[in-house]
Amino acid sequence: MAQQVRNKQVILRDYVSGFPKESDMIIVDNTITLKLPEGSNDVLLKNLYLSCDPYMRNLMNKPQGIPNPLSYSPQSVIAGFGVSKVLESGHPDYKEGDLVWGFCKWEEYRLVPSSQILFKVEHTDVPLSYYTGILGMPGITAYGGFFELGSPKKGENVFVSAASGAVGQLVGQFAKLTGCYVVGSAGSKDKIDLLKNKFGFDEGFNYKEEPDLNAALKRYFPEGIDIYFENVGGKTLDAVLLNMRVHGRIPACGMISQYNLTQPEGVTNLAHLVYKRIRMEGFNSADFFPIYPKFLEFVLPHIREGKIVYVEDIAEGLENGPAALVGLFSGRNVGKQVLVVARE
Amino acid sequence: MAQQVRNKQVILRDYVSGFPKESDMIIVDNTITLKLPEGSNDVLLKNLYLSCDPYMRNLMNKPQGIPNPLSYSPQSVIAGFGVSKVLESGHPDYKEGDLVWGFCKWEEYRLVPSSQILFKVEHTDVPLSYYTGILGMPGITAYGGFFELGSPKKGENVFVSAASGAVGQLVGQFAKLTGCYVVGSAGSKDKIDLLKNKFGFDEGFNYKEEPDLNAALKRYFPEGIDIYFENVGGKTLDAVLLNMRVHGRIPACGMISQYNLTQPEGVTNLAHLVYKRIRMEGFNSADFFPIYPKFLEFVLPHIREGKIVYVEDIAEGLENGPAALVGLFSGRNVGKQVLVVARE
Repeated sequence: MAQQVRNKQVILRDYVSGFPKESDMIIVDNTITLKLPEGSNDVLLKNLYLSCDPYMRNLMNKPQGIPNPLSYSPQSVIAGFGVSKVLESGHPDYKEGDLVWGFCKWEEYRLVPSSQILFKVEHTDVPLSYYTGILGMPGITAYGGFFELGSPKKGENVFVSAASGAVGQLVGQFAKLTGCYVVGSAGSKDKIDLLKNKFGFDEGFNYKEEPDLNAALKRYFPEGIDIYFENVGGKTLDAVLLNMRVHGRIPACGMISQYNLTQPEGVTNLAHLVYKRIRMEGFNSADFFPIYPKFLEFVLPHIREGKIVYVEDIAEGLENGPAALVGLFSGRNVGKQVLVVARE
Repeated sequence: MAQQVRNKQVILRDYVSGFPKESDMIIVDNTITLKLPEGSNDVLLKNLYLSCDPYMRNLMNKPQGIPNPLSYSPQSVIAGFGVSKVLESGHPDYKEGDLVWGFCKWEEYRLVPSSQILFKVEHTDVPLSYYTGILGMPGITAYGGFFELGSPKKGENVFVSAASGAVGQLVGQFAKLTGCYVVGSAGSKDKIDLLKNKFGFDEGFNYKEEPDLNAALKRYFPEGIDIYFENVGGKTLDAVLLNMRVHGRIPACGMISQYNLTQPEGVTNLAHLVYKRIRMEGFNSADFFPIYPKFLEFVLPHIREGKIVYVEDIAEGLENGPAALVGLFSGRNVGKQVLVVARE
């Protein structure tokens, strides 16, 4: 007889408006049969590591206009990127014990079609949690955004906001490897110390202690910014636009400062895009999954040689998921926020 | 003895703040010697047609930060693109009677180094004034912005603001030649009639009669916009961002609605650049001068066959220049605003 086990899940209570709270999510104990139905082509997975990412906030909104197919529904399980282990497979491409990563629901176990799995984990000499970060969605996001959209050249001036986060810490290190001058902004002294002492940024500043962001940028970039890797939007973007150089590039990865505002801040200096002939380009990881193998080839040797480091902030247990996720929006996490569901 | 003649000039009184007025410019009668100095390599030109363009407003501002080398100085002659005739040349590349176009001061005659001339006029079976418009800076701007940055594909949905202007009317016609659906906005019934009946736009609307620009765009683009050719900025851009499709492109040619505001409007929907992975790119004609010969090859046959038309609004006499230039910002001109200094 098939084994029925507990399947803990994180449920969205209702659509969210404004800043998300832990109480917007509920932990429920559901059950699941840990056995594939007869003749199934599906794959039975045990979730190990889940990724907490800012874009997930947008999936909590009541859909307006053309809905995002990933958007959450009230009273349903939320989802994000994660690393899982194959318990049983009805599909020839996967076998018991395989490790995979992709988009998955926030629960302990799940039964999915093989088409829902994104990538098989091929390299296990690095921490498995890295597949939620440097080797997963944030990694390919940083790589594609910086190299493909930023088109960096040696000696150029790079500014990164949310610079100690899952993506920002990588962009800074990629910029240094390229021979750029790189400055990051973040929201605490500890984070600035990380930027300068761990990730090798040339400079960093705490935006909360800068009453005039324009003046701060002029101090660090007297000759202007060539590449702004955009993670925050709002006031920071407005100040950056005043300090961009001609033909600058702004890969726009996220605008976390705006996601919880019912009325987003107005950006007033957009005409500088015209004056300085700047390219600003929104993107997400999906645009770069086709170059994931090329990315791995680039990044794995650097990790193994210690030339690229990655800082994670680890939360333990699915029941602590809501707090970990909500913490992103107050900047509580230091480094990439990971949630451990199970270690194997 | 060298001939001294009157050289009428248009002078900027002082830096301009807010909407420009005719009285911000002064007409003065200067004099010039219509003879090259002995041994000079320079070229003596008579100005024929001058181009009135929105970007000229920005050159009237008090410079802040890194100054634009083209910026005007108080009590100096203003400048823009224009078509001129060579009266005398000390340079072997030019001879008396040649017609040229490039960046030039607003005056009747000028003595310039040959390096200041941009292009020789090679085709005179089309109106000479076209070299301030369809065959000059606005033409290459429309061509480069639409084709190179917009990357249009047959069947795509294109929106153009300031659509009856020097650049907009061309973008609309280029879009139709490419097999796109194209809608334009402008500020009067006459202009909308031009869009639909002369330039072949599929639809057009008067933005002054639309209390809700978002609703207007949803009406004309129920499936969203692939390419927005940006000429105006501000509220229009904000509404467009809500209606862009995934991987849309926004070539940003100008933001005329913002140039006269001491405090620009805030654009609140920029996070849609991220959500929909949109590329927004500021540019100007200088980015595309290298492809000017290719552009001429494309556009001249279409003009000769009547497949592309061009509407000009002609003002006569340098003394009417300030009114013509200022009129751009109230939308007084219908089509490309040209100023005739002399007809030959």
